[in-house]
Amino acid sequence: MARLVLKFGGTSVATIERIRNVALHVKREVDAGHQVAVVVSAMSGKTNELVGWCREASALHDAREYDAVVASGEQITAGLLAITLQSMGLDARSWLGWQIPILTDGAHGAARITGMDGAPLIEAFEKNNQIAVIAGFQGIHQQTGRITTLGRGGSDTSAVAVAAAINADRCDIYTDVDGVYTTDPRVVPHASRLDRVSFEEMLEMASLGAKVLQVRSVELAMLYKVRTFVRSSFDDPAAPRPGTLICDEEDILEQQVVTGIAFSRDEAQITLRRVADHPGIAAAIFGPLADANINVDMIIQVVSDDTTTTDITFTVPASSYERARQILEDHRATIGFTSLQGATDVVKISAIGIGMRSHAGVAARAFRALADKGINIRAITTSEIKFSVLIDAEYTELAVRTLHALYGLDRKPEAETKAAS
Amino acid sequence: MARLVLKFGGTSVATIERIRNVALHVKREVDAGHQVAVVVSAMSGKTNELVGWCREASALHDAREYDAVVASGEQITAGLLAITLQSMGLDARSWLGWQIPILTDGAHGAARITGMDGAPLIEAFEKNNQIAVIAGFQGIHQQTGRITTLGRGGSDTSAVAVAAAINADRCDIYTDVDGVYTTDPRVVPHASRLDRVSFEEMLEMASLGAKVLQVRSVELAMLYKVRTFVRSSFDDPAAPRPGTLICDEEDILEQQVVTGIAFSRDEAQITLRRVADHPGIAAAIFGPLADANINVDMIIQVVSDDTTTTDITFTVPASSYERARQILEDHRATIGFTSLQGATDVVKISAIGIGMRSHAGVAARAFRALADKGINIRAITTSEIKFSVLIDAEYTELAVRTLHALYGLDRKPEAETKAAS
Repeated sequence: MARLVLKFGGTSVATIERIRNVALHVKREVDAGHQVAVVVSAMSGKTNELVGWCREASALHDAREYDAVVASGEQITAGLLAITLQSMGLDARSWLGWQIPILTDGAHGAARITGMDGAPLIEAFEKNNQIAVIAGFQGIHQQTGRITTLGRGGSDTSAVAVAAAINADRCDIYTDVDGVYTTDPRVVPHASRLDRVSFEEMLEMASLGAKVLQVRSVELAMLYKVRTFVRSSFDDPAAPRPGTLICDEEDILEQQVVTGIAFSRDEAQITLRRVADHPGIAAAIFGPLADANINVDMIIQVVSDDTTTTDITFTVPASSYERARQILEDHRATIGFTSLQGATDVVKISAIGIGMRSHAGVAARAFRALADKGINIRAITTSEIKFSVLIDAEYTELAVRTLHALYGLDRKPEAETKAAS
Repeated sequence: MARLVLKFGGTSVATIERIRNVALHVKREVDAGHQVAVVVSAMSGKTNELVGWCREASALHDAREYDAVVASGEQITAGLLAITLQSMGLDARSWLGWQIPILTDGAHGAARITGMDGAPLIEAFEKNNQIAVIAGFQGIHQQTGRITTLGRGGSDTSAVAVAAAINADRCDIYTDVDGVYTTDPRVVPHASRLDRVSFEEMLEMASLGAKVLQVRSVELAMLYKVRTFVRSSFDDPAAPRPGTLICDEEDILEQQVVTGIAFSRDEAQITLRRVADHPGIAAAIFGPLADANINVDMIIQVVSDDTTTTDITFTVPASSYERARQILEDHRATIGFTSLQGATDVVKISAIGIGMRSHAGVAARAFRALADKGINIRAITTSEIKFSVLIDAEYTELAVRTLHALYGLDRKPEAETKAAS
């Protein structure tokens, strides 16, 4: 007997018909003798409808009221799944965020889980082998008693938090793909599904553009060592396919040097020319951007022709680009640059792999391969288990395919034959 | 300064546009210096959608899960109205049943309010003159912490309960008619709006078929002496028309003998022939019906030709008719009747008025007037402030108009002229 958390997203619960399919996945695990908690999102389209009403009521709406309205979506799904499970002869009940309770801070609309007691769920497992159906994406702010939501995709985070609180053996994230791939299969048809990936690698992949899991949920999984399994909710419930297990690196036997290639199109580059090169200049530039909640990512400083000034290049999310430009112009006097150059047609390509720790020259091979294809590198950042390059957006697919092949990630012909048989 | 509760039903909050109109009614009262709590229903159509999903998930659904799903409708409206009020520069917040909390018993789907502490609402009035926007129709079962609903129309009851808990000066029920009428204006075009009606009369009217208010809400209003005002939500918020005040009878100066004529088509008549006339026979008949939650209303016992048996006639709700017949047939041996006759094409017409207490012969005049029109009376019941007759359904309109005119309730021509000017 194991204790499992199963999480289903909005498309998996979009209709009563699909909720019935979800219930069959749950029943399979219960019939196998497991204790099961299920975390559900709102039926797809519901959240957008609710958000639309809030916006129609007022462009500047109170985030606390927004949360009360939007959290109703998951509440509905939780009740409907509990009813469906009961109709299959299983004991089940719905739990809302405030009922367990799942405690969060007061950052309405993007709250962080601060605590959760798994005891009431475990008690229901032990007493009646009752399935706990939990409304994802929501919690309660302990100080005010108001409903909070965790922000888009927060149901993944709810699932991992529940898994940690009830000390689950595994947290299965059912989604519309059958696992984590070496890169986006729409860009590289030869991309292959990973059987296992380490928490650290998954965290980098999610942070660097892979959309399969929310960054925050991977952080939590890593922190509490929750073995997390990404798999497809559209599989036949009677014969599910293998997915990808996100686990500790010591549980991964065959380590690749590079595990995956991620890319993010949400990038913009800003270059400040001839900035006075004196102590405190970084604070003068990046302080105001931080105050405006703009995330600065890659930073490069190049000494310019004369030695008293320097050129500084950095990236910001494309959505923050105009705001960042405005803020820098507003602070031109204190920073003291001669010109500001920007570009939004750039993309960040990253290679991730814990094998980089023990292998030298991994990034250097990439720089050479990209140069051979005539791709100019605008900026580079590296860390212990990944490196990223900023290039012109028009080379995105070429660069991803080049690196994917370079590190031996392309699916082998025999594997393809096997998959087809 | 007064303290008011305003309640708005589903059609009044069906769209964001209508919610804005509701907000204008609220703003008028706040601008007049009042402390205001608002109770809202689900946007019209929402509850039916949610109920439909529960039924689709399972014909026999758990009432606790049904409540969790269905209560989300009022939650959404409460948040949206709070956002709308804030956009008009007013301080407002939503309150869900479990947040105040509104405590109920555990009869999910038709729960009764058992307690409620108005202190948190009053504190918000006193501190910030904050408007409390309360999700109607819902509460929480204290023992289990599960969401409960009060049953259809329960938002009226929520409103009166809130008014009692915060010791409100008045509870305004905004609805799609502009008050309580002497009878249904669709049947009697000369029906007139009552300025005032006593709690006792309103309770009888609601029980006997008038649909303007839920019986339970009137019971609560009478118990806690909540002055309740029925008025139209479709009035211009800047110039609302008068409605009907439901109040203590001592607050009504000009007492009519008869205040209103109500009728109910939801009736069925059952006659048991030649029932053995011995002690315990009533229990043998009505016990099994009560066990099946079938409400028996009018009961008449007529001694038949031979003195050892009796004929018993009574009415049940039309919706319970087939079930009642079946139960009686199942108990035929213990009851011992020779035949069972039934009719569903019957209607109950009632005249209500606290003036009946002090005036004799009020009902006798009705019996004569109906006989003059050739209407046969199948059964009669009377109580201190009302009498009811059961007649063939085809005479419904004729009988209602006859009694309405008989007791001087027809709107006078001069009143019509005044209303038109």
